[in-house]
Amino acid sequence: MDKSHVEELMRKNARHTAQGAVASYIPELKKQDPSLLGLCMMAVDGRTLSFGDDRSRFTAQSIVKVPVLLAALLDNSLERLFQKINLSPTADGFNSIVSLETKSDKKPLNPFINSGAIAALSMVAGEQPEEKFRRVLELFRRIAQNPHIEVNEAVYRSEKATGDRNRALAYYMKSTGILECAVEPLLDAYFRLCSLEVDCHDIASLGYFLARNGLTPQDERLADRGACRLIKAVMATCGMYDGSGEFAAMVGIPAKSGVGGGIMGVVPGRCGVGVLGPALDEHGNSLAGVMLLHDLSELFDWSIY
Amino acid sequence: MDKSHVEELMRKNARHTAQGAVASYIPELKKQDPSLLGLCMMAVDGRTLSFGDDRSRFTAQSIVKVPVLLAALLDNSLERLFQKINLSPTADGFNSIVSLETKSDKKPLNPFINSGAIAALSMVAGEQPEEKFRRVLELFRRIAQNPHIEVNEAVYRSEKATGDRNRALAYYMKSTGILECAVEPLLDAYFRLCSLEVDCHDIASLGYFLARNGLTPQDERLADRGACRLIKAVMATCGMYDGSGEFAAMVGIPAKSGVGGGIMGVVPGRCGVGVLGPALDEHGNSLAGVMLLHDLSELFDWSIY
Amino acid sequence: MDKSHVEELMRKNARHTAQGAVASYIPELKKQDPSLLGLCMMAVDGRTLSFGDDRSRFTAQSIVKVPVLLAALLDNSLERLFQKINLSPTADGFNSIVSLETKSDKKPLNPFINSGAIAALSMVAGEQPEEKFRRVLELFRRIAQNPHIEVNEAVYRSEKATGDRNRALAYYMKSTGILECAVEPLLDAYFRLCSLEVDCHDIASLGYFLARNGLTPQDERLADRGACRLIKAVMATCGMYDGSGEFAAMVGIPAKSGVGGGIMGVVPGRCGVGVLGPALDEHGNSLAGVMLLHDLSELFDWSIY
Amino acid sequence: MDKSHVEELMRKNARHTAQGAVASYIPELKKQDPSLLGLCMMAVDGRTLSFGDDRSRFTAQSIVKVPVLLAALLDNSLERLFQKINLSPTADGFNSIVSLETKSDKKPLNPFINSGAIAALSMVAGEQPEEKFRRVLELFRRIAQNPHIEVNEAVYRSEKATGDRNRALAYYMKSTGILECAVEPLLDAYFRLCSLEVDCHDIASLGYFLARNGLTPQDERLADRGACRLIKAVMATCGMYDGSGEFAAMVGIPAKSGVGGGIMGVVPGRCGVGVLGPALDEHGNSLAGVMLLHDLSELFDWSIY
Repeated sequence: MDKSHVEELMRKNARHTAQGAVASYIPELKKQDPSLLGLCMMAVDGRTLSFGDDRSRFTAQSIVKVPVLLAALLDNSLERLFQKINLSPTADGFNSIVSLETKSDKKPLNPFINSGAIAALSMVAGEQPEEKFRRVLELFRRIAQNPHIEVNEAVYRSEKATGDRNRALAYYMKSTGILECAVEPLLDAYFRLCSLEVDCHDIASLGYFLARNGLTPQDERLADRGACRLIKAVMATCGMYDGSGEFAAMVGIPAKSGVGGGIMGVVPGRCGVGVLGPALDEHGNSLAGVMLLHDLSELFDWSIY
Repeated sequence: MDKSHVEELMRKNARHTAQGAVASYIPELKKQDPSLLGLCMMAVDGRTLSFGDDRSRFTAQSIVKVPVLLAALLDNSLERLFQKINLSPTADGFNSIVSLETKSDKKPLNPFINSGAIAALSMVAGEQPEEKFRRVLELFRRIAQNPHIEVNEAVYRSEKATGDRNRALAYYMKSTGILECAVEPLLDAYFRLCSLEVDCHDIASLGYFLARNGLTPQDERLADRGACRLIKAVMATCGMYDGSGEFAAMVGIPAKSGVGGGIMGVVPGRCGVGVLGPALDEHGNSLAGVMLLHDLSELFDWSIY
Repeated sequence: MDKSHVEELMRKNARHTAQGAVASYIPELKKQDPSLLGLCMMAVDGRTLSFGDDRSRFTAQSIVKVPVLLAALLDNSLERLFQKINLSPTADGFNSIVSLETKSDKKPLNPFINSGAIAALSMVAGEQPEEKFRRVLELFRRIAQNPHIEVNEAVYRSEKATGDRNRALAYYMKSTGILECAVEPLLDAYFRLCSLEVDCHDIASLGYFLARNGLTPQDERLADRGACRLIKAVMATCGMYDGSGEFAAMVGIPAKSGVGGGIMGVVPGRCGVGVLGPALDEHGNSLAGVMLLHDLSELFDWSIY
Repeated sequence: MDKSHVEELMRKNARHTAQGAVASYIPELKKQDPSLLGLCMMAVDGRTLSFGDDRSRFTAQSIVKVPVLLAALLDNSLERLFQKINLSPTADGFNSIVSLETKSDKKPLNPFINSGAIAALSMVAGEQPEEKFRRVLELFRRIAQNPHIEVNEAVYRSEKATGDRNRALAYYMKSTGILECAVEPLLDAYFRLCSLEVDCHDIASLGYFLARNGLTPQDERLADRGACRLIKAVMATCGMYDGSGEFAAMVGIPAKSGVGGGIMGVVPGRCGVGVLGPALDEHGNSLAGVMLLHDLSELFDWSIY
């Protein structure tokens, strides 16, 4: 990886940060600085390159759906998990409720829309939601090699205060038997997980872990190859909200975005990538982040297709 | 590639041909023999291995959406093409009409559902649908190195006689301006393309061509890398109807199926794959074919994720 | 009925003709004069009062769905008719196709949305669509006591040229078995029926006929009370497109509107009403016409509720 | 009214009670006796006739949506009320959530589906839901001349325990700003109102009140004619769930049903009707009750159409 070429792409795409808009449906997220652009790339050989605002902190938001799904895969058989959640990509929005009523099996379409992530969290080990929360947090911390990942309390309170759409999704799933536990404590755990504060290095580590099919930098195996490949397949087909198809065509790597402005990418067998750019496009993905990943994919020939 | 291991997988999966059912909505397809199982693998170094009913002939059906999209990409700028068609994977069925009304832009969700393929065909070069038909046919023949690919007239007549759902899709798109040409002649070309008769070698050649990003066996370049990657991205996210997400998770290669029982797969940089198994699963994909591809993917470590 | 009070309401509501807009999706309808306002009331005792542009001619458009349904009721048992068409009011638009796919029985929701009217026409007596056309036309002429009702050829050609949405509906119903006859000739008959040219007196006669539960002015019985009541019930619940509920609440009489600007109303046991006002509201109903009917309903205490 | 003819119709329709099934989604309702059939007719001149199980008690369920709408109309301007709720009949089920997402204005379709009734209750006068509950209860008691109408505590607890679908609806409306108050206390009031225990006389009184456009038996005016007509119009178009259109065609009077087995009907200017028959048809309406009302409508020529 040649630093100067990447620096040039950082400069080029920094201008695009002015074109998007920070998320506004969670009030606390409105306070983010839209002009930030950060990048961290972590190669499987351990070398790490970082640029721009790579140490700025942001909340993981939907990126946490990846460790949630990982925990659900570790704690359940595939058969059991897919009795509750499908693996269908969708053109509907990430918080759409329509398919819960119209699809005959009532299952969330996939684990990366909100309903599916909430259902996946309900299947993580732990009697109480608090235990499920700790299970996912500890997994995330170990993968990121960062014991300091914590909840941003202000964002958490803001999510909880304005999380009525997620409540609608959860109560709907409760009414159809997809959720079997109490709704409000589960959502509390979900809101706290979405509010975990990370930086580009943390999410690049998550990508690195998937790029190596389940190994930490210390070669500790936390998951098997099958689980990691399944996660990357879901990322590739559903990871960028309803922009997933376009992202596959234009960038071509498994990735998961969050409305906090982060994008976590995986180049299988090669590297993990973490990007920050809080100004979002119409799909809810970091606008400059997607453009930067497009350019990096061209530069390094990352596309898996 | 070790022939004896593959032969074992062929035997193992041949039993699964009894579990699916041949397509019945096109009367002529009901005549297919559900017990067939054929395989052809064409490595980028030119070596070809074939098994079982690899020389049985079947109609391409939705597999032809791949050369249709290729022709549309060759004959239009990306910008122009995506004014008419989106790139969104979907959990709706391949012949669903709902999103043409409910999505605000009225565009087909992607080029591999019926509405999107019909729209793509309308954008292939040629004043008359007959020319569009010949353009796609010639492209397919050159890629497959087989000038004998022809329309199965009985299937074509059956498709045309029972193609009212496609007429509904096409007239709907005509009413919203997505289609700009006369509907019935365009559908006639579409029905003939779906009725092209191929064998496992022909579709494996298509996969080989995409695996090499646009080169024929004679190293003739018919398309650039960008177009081929886009097609593979659409295959990976939308190629297996509403079973695309599950196929990505379980098999992990870009593929396109047809209700004639064929599946065309691509292992980028490695090989093209053609499978035949007319008995279909609930998504409309070859049931034994998907299981065989799963086993082959495990054996040869094909997953791109 | 006091003429001067009505004249005052005509003056008051004539101003509202400036607020709506003539239908534009059928090019020929764009030529209509939006400032027209006509009224004809025909009491069951035979007295007729008319005002304003009561002799201006316009095309019946969806108002013809009433004689179509009447003919279908005369020519079929209720049981047979409702194997093909439901009686459900709907909040969807008059030309929506979504429910044909999403409702499990695939039947048009009711006989007054386009799909339902086309299905009803297919069940009118007559081997050929031409005969079905004549059957409805003759029924309409006899009820209106006007043998001169004819097709407006320019509007018919315009409807036919731009009727692709109706073709989509019809081919969809053909694909699910709701329609059993050839689509294009049936639509030709449908387009001609929609293009029948009438005036306020003609449609008031239709209302008069229903107000008297099946009797012409000459006391000739053309339909029984049950059929007429069913039609009025469908008018009351589905007659004003997706403005039917609001119209019931605000005006309170069974009515059927057309995008040609006409509204045909029935005050059961009292009178038939015909209104013309080509400028339409957002539901596709005559804007000034609805307001005039509201005022007339207040004045004469017409509400059936 | 001739008692012997009605008694004959009671006997005839009592047999149909065996064809339906009591509501099962609220566990406590499963305990109802499906064989009950009760009738009370209350003419505007004060005469009351009652038959069968007219004194059996049942919970009002959706019938309470009528006094809820009445209270909302009394406590708000029409303009304000219809900023929150539409008046559109619908073919969707009473607890459907789809249209809250798909309709651009996000408003409940009408006040008689669950979402609309919850929204209407939120607009009833009272700072706290407890006050809204008392407001509706007192109104119902005064109209029914029955101060003993009380909550059935077992049914209330059962509704509350299993009311997750209503929670989904309410939280969805909270997320879009339709609901402005806290969800759970409002739903608590809603569940208690649905659980009010009544008999055929109580609901016939409600019909009597609407038949007289707002007058109690003591000629006390509790509402004006306009509000009562609006309510009857909504009953006529939306009162019998997705069976409203068929009921209009086959019975022809404004009515409101509840899954407790009750149907409250109004013959404007003539009488109020209360029916009990806990075995329900596929729409959720009393099966024998609808058939009895059909026969009574024929006998007494009740249809308003």
